[in-house]
Amino acid sequence: MIITLKKEAPKQEVAKLINQFEKQGLKVNVITGENYDVFGLVGDTAKLDERKIQANQWVENVQRIAAPYKLANRMFHPEDSIIDVAGIKIGGHEPIVLMAGPCSVENDEMICHIAKEVKDAGAKMLRGGAYKPRTSPYAFQGMGYEGIKCLDHARSETGLPIVTELMSADKIDEFVENVDLIQIGARNMQNFDLLKAVGKINKPILLKRGLSATIEEWIMSAEYIMANGNPNVIMCERGIRTFEKYTRNTLDVSVIPLIKEKTHLPIVIDPSHATGDWKLVEAMSLAAIAAGADGLIIEVHDHPDCALSDGAQSLKPEKFKALVNKAKLVAKAVGREI
Amino acid sequence: MIITLKKEAPKQEVAKLINQFEKQGLKVNVITGENYDVFGLVGDTAKLDERKIQANQWVENVQRIAAPYKLANRMFHPEDSIIDVAGIKIGGHEPIVLMAGPCSVENDEMICHIAKEVKDAGAKMLRGGAYKPRTSPYAFQGMGYEGIKCLDHARSETGLPIVTELMSADKIDEFVENVDLIQIGARNMQNFDLLKAVGKINKPILLKRGLSATIEEWIMSAEYIMANGNPNVIMCERGIRTFEKYTRNTLDVSVIPLIKEKTHLPIVIDPSHATGDWKLVEAMSLAAIAAGADGLIIEVHDHPDCALSDGAQSLKPEKFKALVNKAKLVAKAVGREI
Amino acid sequence: MIITLKKEAPKQEVAKLINQFEKQGLKVNVITGENYDVFGLVGDTAKLDERKIQANQWVENVQRIAAPYKLANRMFHPEDSIIDVAGIKIGGHEPIVLMAGPCSVENDEMICHIAKEVKDAGAKMLRGGAYKPRTSPYAFQGMGYEGIKCLDHARSETGLPIVTELMSADKIDEFVENVDLIQIGARNMQNFDLLKAVGKINKPILLKRGLSATIEEWIMSAEYIMANGNPNVIMCERGIRTFEKYTRNTLDVSVIPLIKEKTHLPIVIDPSHATGDWKLVEAMSLAAIAAGADGLIIEVHDHPDCALSDGAQSLKPEKFKALVNKAKLVAKAVGREI
Amino acid sequence: MIITLKKEAPKQEVAKLINQFEKQGLKVNVITGENYDVFGLVGDTAKLDERKIQANQWVENVQRIAAPYKLANRMFHPEDSIIDVAGIKIGGHEPIVLMAGPCSVENDEMICHIAKEVKDAGAKMLRGGAYKPRTSPYAFQGMGYEGIKCLDHARSETGLPIVTELMSADKIDEFVENVDLIQIGARNMQNFDLLKAVGKINKPILLKRGLSATIEEWIMSAEYIMANGNPNVIMCERGIRTFEKYTRNTLDVSVIPLIKEKTHLPIVIDPSHATGDWKLVEAMSLAAIAAGADGLIIEVHDHPDCALSDGAQSLKPEKFKALVNKAKLVAKAVGREI
Repeated sequence: MIITLKKEAPKQEVAKLINQFEKQGLKVNVITGENYDVFGLVGDTAKLDERKIQANQWVENVQRIAAPYKLANRMFHPEDSIIDVAGIKIGGHEPIVLMAGPCSVENDEMICHIAKEVKDAGAKMLRGGAYKPRTSPYAFQGMGYEGIKCLDHARSETGLPIVTELMSADKIDEFVENVDLIQIGARNMQNFDLLKAVGKINKPILLKRGLSATIEEWIMSAEYIMANGNPNVIMCERGIRTFEKYTRNTLDVSVIPLIKEKTHLPIVIDPSHATGDWKLVEAMSLAAIAAGADGLIIEVHDHPDCALSDGAQSLKPEKFKALVNKAKLVAKAVGREI
Repeated sequence: MIITLKKEAPKQEVAKLINQFEKQGLKVNVITGENYDVFGLVGDTAKLDERKIQANQWVENVQRIAAPYKLANRMFHPEDSIIDVAGIKIGGHEPIVLMAGPCSVENDEMICHIAKEVKDAGAKMLRGGAYKPRTSPYAFQGMGYEGIKCLDHARSETGLPIVTELMSADKIDEFVENVDLIQIGARNMQNFDLLKAVGKINKPILLKRGLSATIEEWIMSAEYIMANGNPNVIMCERGIRTFEKYTRNTLDVSVIPLIKEKTHLPIVIDPSHATGDWKLVEAMSLAAIAAGADGLIIEVHDHPDCALSDGAQSLKPEKFKALVNKAKLVAKAVGREI
Repeated sequence: MIITLKKEAPKQEVAKLINQFEKQGLKVNVITGENYDVFGLVGDTAKLDERKIQANQWVENVQRIAAPYKLANRMFHPEDSIIDVAGIKIGGHEPIVLMAGPCSVENDEMICHIAKEVKDAGAKMLRGGAYKPRTSPYAFQGMGYEGIKCLDHARSETGLPIVTELMSADKIDEFVENVDLIQIGARNMQNFDLLKAVGKINKPILLKRGLSATIEEWIMSAEYIMANGNPNVIMCERGIRTFEKYTRNTLDVSVIPLIKEKTHLPIVIDPSHATGDWKLVEAMSLAAIAAGADGLIIEVHDHPDCALSDGAQSLKPEKFKALVNKAKLVAKAVGREI
Repeated sequence: MIITLKKEAPKQEVAKLINQFEKQGLKVNVITGENYDVFGLVGDTAKLDERKIQANQWVENVQRIAAPYKLANRMFHPEDSIIDVAGIKIGGHEPIVLMAGPCSVENDEMICHIAKEVKDAGAKMLRGGAYKPRTSPYAFQGMGYEGIKCLDHARSETGLPIVTELMSADKIDEFVENVDLIQIGARNMQNFDLLKAVGKINKPILLKRGLSATIEEWIMSAEYIMANGNPNVIMCERGIRTFEKYTRNTLDVSVIPLIKEKTHLPIVIDPSHATGDWKLVEAMSLAAIAAGADGLIIEVHDHPDCALSDGAQSLKPEKFKALVNKAKLVAKAVGREI
């Protein structure tokens, strides 16, 4: 950690600061500059709170050298983590995993029907929302536990593991019992109580990036889950909020190489929520694969204009099938399989 | 609601769409343009899902005319809502309410001591975090229920009502019993299960704006609380995330007149979290009052550089006192009292 | 164009507005809603200024239906534009064009040497800055006309057409004479006098997107060039500014399908400026090709850590060569050639 | 400057780097950390290019300690700069200066008429655009030199100095001769050739902040002008681009104390362009004054709904007058005059 001190800092204040750090077992290197003095702290600075140091009136600036995450950090865990979701492996050199299905589970028949279609097209997991985070209190809020039972039925018919969103810690037993991959949604990425709760189970977690979360904050949310005991975290980019109006969000494709550089965790891309527009989903899916994504999660619906949520971004099954065929070619071109 | 249709839309598809809307009790006005046709829907369009309509392949665009919120909407509730927090009134032409205290409650003695200081300086409520949302799992997570008891003690010593953050619905009884104004933090602004839970109680809620929430989304979160039965919502702006690096966040002062135009709810400004820098707090506080804010929530700490969280943005009590004196002059200049 | 009127608008004011639009040859359709009335204007609304209409105190809102651009609009020009840059064709189904070279021209020998290397690796055009937009007045500002002469020399040695940035209209003759593809940089995307000037020549223009330009504004800048008489515009995405700190900018890959949907112009991606980090350039290049880009512009330097500008994002020639080989495979997978 | 090195950096590479810095007259302090080594460079690092150092493959990170600007830096120029615009002083403890007038000059009569009205209301300078930066090539582009002549006439009738935007260096003689305060618009904030040109004259410059410019970049643009010889720079905030849709831009009020902390230059606020909505202009004006602004620049038009540009954000003269009266009270409350 690097601490910049104002030149006018009184000597005894500087000595007090040095003393304070040394008492915490840190070594303080002092560099005397022209307009500032600088402390270089050596030791375990992860426990220091930079904003507390920043509060000192003689401190101009505090900068971390080391990343604030440890368990997720590739520096201390160089090999790729491969996460097992009910037998489907994701990460490392494993085949790219396609997850597909409707935004919301609407009834038993529809989810079973779509499950078969996406399986035929090449999907390896079934997605579908039972508990739905909706911006409006007047919008369809999901089928809840009934939806989970429909997903369970679709799984038994097709063998596809299921991924669905958990919104509240009080449903955690229901999810542990029924769900193969538990999704934490973008709006809950910093719902720290929920992160702690899923850190105490051992089911795999699909952790979506918040709409305006920095990559570091997103990794820190993975760290929350891991520090509470659950190492099975899969990162999922779903677009960030920018000023652009032609797309719902802006898909940040560069997170794919970055998450692989900074962490050892798998990275999955959600082109449906990122763009909000089915016409853009295919191009973004191919881009994600070319950049090295470990999986895709894509919305598919038989009748997008009758969907109970987010029809605008859903592909019809035949379009999804066409996408999968192109995706296989791009995967092969970059040395991966689907 | 305005729906733009592509010229190449087949007649029977257009007829089907019109029929669909009419069955929902809406009147459809068709305007034939040069490059597009347009439907103007008249009736209660709040229940329509624009993304479902957008999914229709012949639809180019869907635009709402009316705001998606009703209970919070000033159009249907022209007079200001005045919220009563344990006897302190906020909103309308009531005096501007100052809430002050440390970021985190650290122990009983410190919170009682600060409570007296901020009361002496002119604060009307005491703030202090007991349950703390922290980006890092390794940072101090707050005293929890012990912290609530300390706040209760400080209240009994000073008479100041207390405001503190609720992070999880399973603590709601504890908060209803002990807390005067329940804060929903920025990171939980779209934790819809938590919003529903606080909608079912009748304590006043301080609803912070999410880091990248649009004003409309923020009002929709208030609408969630109100639609579940609790009309006592106070809006709180705490800065939005932008590209700027010299401040922690960018305080959006324009929400003050906007929230007053679009809703009937009181608006409070948090200059401490917005800027992240105590040196900017006074100027931003005065700006907020000049623009019409109904209250301020400000971090005050006796020893910011020993604070267990967010020291960098905390004022020392004497600086807070100086701020209050200036704030009174600005309030008077705009026809308000403190 | 859709105009929303407040219910309290006096009848004579409404009549005056209608009259005003009709005098401009527009047909006004009036829809009477519950909380608002709506005008649907039919006719050539491109000449209307929505902010002028918005100024009317009885107007709640103004929304455009048709895009404000015409010459760049695919609706009125369905086939792809293919731009010819000194014999190299770009756009449509033409082979993907690789442009490569250093950020800045540093001397004659270096640019000739790099030109040969990038040509050997598969580049079809040579890039290199002679006039450099630098954030700091104390940084290297480019070789100026000497740099243009070096580029000319490198072109004569290799046959590669050259692309370089024009910063000021007073150098336009120099560029028309010497440069094959004239770049308008991100910071000048809305330097309208410069856009008008390059609209009056017939050399192809590489128009970079501004750091926070919406796609619509970017297309409007292309429209400026086209409306002044030069139809030879190539769009170039180079990353947008967001809150993210791990990358210099965020590459918006979704512009590739969007620019192809909204316009008929070719789209080129600059992964070097977008990421600011050579380690991310390969992944982003492959993503761009998979998403349908018509070209890439990539920084290559023999000794990035001695580069006079932007070394951090420059690839060494051997890394560029490896990238080209992978890019060819991805291009083939999506039915294109390089 | 702080340089973080990877532990795996070979000793001879480290030695080479140290040697390189020492040859440039810098002292290198080496701190050996647990996961990284760190160089602390002492000396004049303003001339170093951090991106060039970052290009070294053994370098993890480069961080500046000192600000990259010198002439604008308050550290080296502690007293406030007071700029004289044709006898009107702005900055320091001088009275707050109100500049007002229409977005565009439309004809001689209108500008003379508005000039008198704003003067009567308390304005000390007249604003009005003659050369207009417009997003659309089809929109009114301003009266050009004729507009300058109308402004000159209005000045001679009222005695108000005039401020208007310069878009191109080829008009600089015309502006030096006729204009009192030359505005550089937001879209040209990093048109470096234009900055250099106005650096070579001695007229005062009103430098608007770019739509997505960091405060540091904005100060660096002031530094460009100052480094070229013109110290008479006034900073002007006009809103930044964010994701928010209810306002045109987001006014960043916190720049007021920040510009005063980091630089010695005056700061003026433009609430009209920042909000794009006349209904918000008064509240934002009062906020700016409370926060310490040295001036305001406000759009005023007799008939906003007939304005040739930006009517939506223009105040009618009587509303401007009411604003001035309130502004005087707020100014007094913070110890300033208008």
